[in-house]
Amino acid sequence: MNFRNRVGGFLDTPLFQNAILGVIVFNAVILGLETVGPLMARAGALITALDKLCLSFFVVEIVAKLYARGLGGFFRRGWNVFDFVIVGISLVPTTQGLSVLRALRILRLLRVVSVAPSLRRVVEGLVTALPGMGSVFLLMGMIFYIGSVMATKLFGEAFPQWFGDLGRSAYSLFQIMTLESWSMGIVRPVMEVFPYAWGFFVPFIMVTTFAVVNLLVGLIVNSMQDAHHTEDAEKTDTYRDEVLGRLDRLEEMMRAQSGGGGPRP
Amino acid sequence: MNFRNRVGGFLDTPLFQNAILGVIVFNAVILGLETVGPLMARAGALITALDKLCLSFFVVEIVAKLYARGLGGFFRRGWNVFDFVIVGISLVPTTQGLSVLRALRILRLLRVVSVAPSLRRVVEGLVTALPGMGSVFLLMGMIFYIGSVMATKLFGEAFPQWFGDLGRSAYSLFQIMTLESWSMGIVRPVMEVFPYAWGFFVPFIMVTTFAVVNLLVGLIVNSMQDAHHTEDAEKTDTYRDEVLGRLDRLEEMMRAQSGGGGPRP
Amino acid sequence: MNFRNRVGGFLDTPLFQNAILGVIVFNAVILGLETVGPLMARAGALITALDKLCLSFFVVEIVAKLYARGLGGFFRRGWNVFDFVIVGISLVPTTQGLSVLRALRILRLLRVVSVAPSLRRVVEGLVTALPGMGSVFLLMGMIFYIGSVMATKLFGEAFPQWFGDLGRSAYSLFQIMTLESWSMGIVRPVMEVFPYAWGFFVPFIMVTTFAVVNLLVGLIVNSMQDAHHTEDAEKTDTYRDEVLGRLDRLEEMMRAQSGGGGPRP
Amino acid sequence: MNFRNRVGGFLDTPLFQNAILGVIVFNAVILGLETVGPLMARAGALITALDKLCLSFFVVEIVAKLYARGLGGFFRRGWNVFDFVIVGISLVPTTQGLSVLRALRILRLLRVVSVAPSLRRVVEGLVTALPGMGSVFLLMGMIFYIGSVMATKLFGEAFPQWFGDLGRSAYSLFQIMTLESWSMGIVRPVMEVFPYAWGFFVPFIMVTTFAVVNLLVGLIVNSMQDAHHTEDAEKTDTYRDEVLGRLDRLEEMMRAQSGGGGPRP
Repeated sequence: MNFRNRVGGFLDTPLFQNAILGVIVFNAVILGLETVGPLMARAGALITALDKLCLSFFVVEIVAKLYARGLGGFFRRGWNVFDFVIVGISLVPTTQGLSVLRALRILRLLRVVSVAPSLRRVVEGLVTALPGMGSVFLLMGMIFYIGSVMATKLFGEAFPQWFGDLGRSAYSLFQIMTLESWSMGIVRPVMEVFPYAWGFFVPFIMVTTFAVVNLLVGLIVNSMQDAHHTEDAEKTDTYRDEVLGRLDRLEEMMRAQSGGGGPRP
Repeated sequence: MNFRNRVGGFLDTPLFQNAILGVIVFNAVILGLETVGPLMARAGALITALDKLCLSFFVVEIVAKLYARGLGGFFRRGWNVFDFVIVGISLVPTTQGLSVLRALRILRLLRVVSVAPSLRRVVEGLVTALPGMGSVFLLMGMIFYIGSVMATKLFGEAFPQWFGDLGRSAYSLFQIMTLESWSMGIVRPVMEVFPYAWGFFVPFIMVTTFAVVNLLVGLIVNSMQDAHHTEDAEKTDTYRDEVLGRLDRLEEMMRAQSGGGGPRP
Repeated sequence: MNFRNRVGGFLDTPLFQNAILGVIVFNAVILGLETVGPLMARAGALITALDKLCLSFFVVEIVAKLYARGLGGFFRRGWNVFDFVIVGISLVPTTQGLSVLRALRILRLLRVVSVAPSLRRVVEGLVTALPGMGSVFLLMGMIFYIGSVMATKLFGEAFPQWFGDLGRSAYSLFQIMTLESWSMGIVRPVMEVFPYAWGFFVPFIMVTTFAVVNLLVGLIVNSMQDAHHTEDAEKTDTYRDEVLGRLDRLEEMMRAQSGGGGPRP
Repeated sequence: MNFRNRVGGFLDTPLFQNAILGVIVFNAVILGLETVGPLMARAGALITALDKLCLSFFVVEIVAKLYARGLGGFFRRGWNVFDFVIVGISLVPTTQGLSVLRALRILRLLRVVSVAPSLRRVVEGLVTALPGMGSVFLLMGMIFYIGSVMATKLFGEAFPQWFGDLGRSAYSLFQIMTLESWSMGIVRPVMEVFPYAWGFFVPFIMVTTFAVVNLLVGLIVNSMQDAHHTEDAEKTDTYRDEVLGRLDRLEEMMRAQSGGGGPRP
């Protein structure tokens, strides 16, 4: 066993896995403490140092994994790509005042998902449910595009803050789809200028709600069938094979007994 | 094969179908660009010309389809009527300032649904689910009519902006059904004048929510049964026929063996 | 056949049922027109007279039904009681300014439900689903009572308009359960006085939402089982009886053939 | 039978159970009356005395149960711990102005759940459904922690009242998850300072809504399977055992008849 294999084996030990889990959670707590102003004033240097230490640990881990698995083997697993991107974000220099990138460091906590198998299974379950609803998502996208173009053309001039361009219209329509202040906040004011505006917004609400409900129904039906088909169906198939096999045997025995007589199918 | 059949055959080729799809998507992008003010100021003529070109393409396509299939054959398919109406809307002259009709041109993007089979199946699935819930929709309509008449008579004089006539009441009740600002926005102000107004609105919310929930339950149960009955039930029927057939054969063999003896049913 | 039976028979004819349906719908339209101010100013007398005519028709119908079925037979059917109460409301004199009772006249449209069999079945389906969820409703009632008492004691003095007494608290908690303006409208202002108020409201939202979700789940599971057990289960039972019967016959034939020999169970 | 067993037996009689139920409900009414100001001014002493009486009854009941079952036997049942805590809260002296503890006394009404078997079963059903969704809850917790840290770092300085520290951010994100005033109340004002804030909030809404929907789907699928597997599956198993047993018997009879001949599997 060469050094490369030994590194790979060590990365897979439960002890090391638990150590990573511990560092991830510890790092998340550290990043949470960073938001506490008075604490940062007193012990800011220590907290920043601990965060850097955790980051170094993650970098070493990923480098070791890259070495053990090779470039191809590493990037073939989706979860490794996920870890690589999340750790990579933290290494981008933030001196140019890109405070957004600093805020993204807390995403490292998501690495818990890639380490803990039970969480990984839940997320994989959620993600595999998505492609089955691709058509409905595409339809929703089309409805939003059509709605945004129409709202911009109809109400854009009178209400630029809500429907001034395609992006604003899409955001406002998303708000309306979630039913937040759709009437008192948006549609009633619009109706003071365009009295028939409800003819656009009420159907929009009905169609998008109906599409969302159908996404939900699709999810339920899929989950139900998956759950149904694993255990029960297998048991039924075994039983059916057994019955047909025995009936075969009975028929053969009878044919042997009667000397090949009897009606054939 | 006469010219008519050759036109019909050409319309059905995958190449032509993809060409239509491309023109539809291109046209939707063009109509989206029309909402960008600065762009229209510079290249408005080009964009309008491209839109007219796309429209001509659709008109030619529909005329060709009408020629190939004949009037009866064309209008027998619901999706053709859908295409005809959507393209027809764009041909109505909009010189009278009917800006609404101009905004409706983006509905052409919906033609994607009639061209792409996977989207067509989703929409057909949604639409076929509707008639099964006809009774619940009728009930909802009655509840809204009753609620509107009552709200107009009770609160119309004091709150004309919300319950001044049947239309306003219906709109306000729709807003209340979606739970948007129902209490802080509408019912609490109404209760300052009519302290027992909650006795009308709270039951209204409960009844309509319950009806909507039942629509949802009906949708789920229907989808589940459809999904259940296709594969599984067929397999079960095949198996059952097989078992009964073999039992028949066994009985016949036995009867032949024993010379017609044995108990008959 | 005496007169009584002939009246009863006439009430059940499809022609008379459709006539009732027509009068109900016509009456609903009349009551809707009553809300149109300018129309009432011109043709108010005619509209009121037509409404009185419809009401007379309903009274005659119910009296005829009472005569044909007898007191006991009439009130044994829930739908007859429903009709009786709805028509009865309209006969209470409204001269004392009880405008609420006048508004209730539109409830007569609900008689459509008792006349049209398809709507009757939907409503009966909704109503029969209720008792199965009795326990969850009882729990919800308890949660609301506990919540109202606690909210009144904790926040009643500081916010009398929302939590001044049990009734106001129950209404506010219902609003919070529907998630309408719960935070911006109620909980944030309360938290300015009682900073830990979220410790009461957030768990209240979670518990009531979870209970509502369970009502929904219960409804779905019940409907699914009802739908499942009607057709499919019957077919399966028939098949199983058939298989067991044939196996019985085979065994008996074999026993007869071998002269009662062979192993007995 | 010693005294201890007789006490234990008496505690289990239906008569005593109903008596407890009566006292609990009576106590809840008393605590409700305490919120009525004018009544307390006149009959406050009587109401307080009745409440004390009810409390004494509960204390005696729990002491008797402790005596009859023993410390270990008492605390082994979760519902006894529940009763013990709820009654214990009322015994803590409230002289230091801990008005919150006084408000908690109404929680005693929850003892109805531990006494009435049908309610107990519902609550046990709800509670047993929770662990199955542990992973999704853990994910939700992580999403909220990540969201709170990011929101505090990004928007904390500009909007201290909403995102000033982790607690405020978590509360605001909970409000946003329930879709209450998320856009008009929070995100639109934030977007005036940070125009790309929607890039944080819209995905947050989508992810949390999707997670909640999956909790719901999980609940439905679990309940459905539980309901499915009790009756139906048992009947199917009985039938299958019966068929296989009879086929065995047939085969054995045939083998006996033919003198052990025929093909063996």
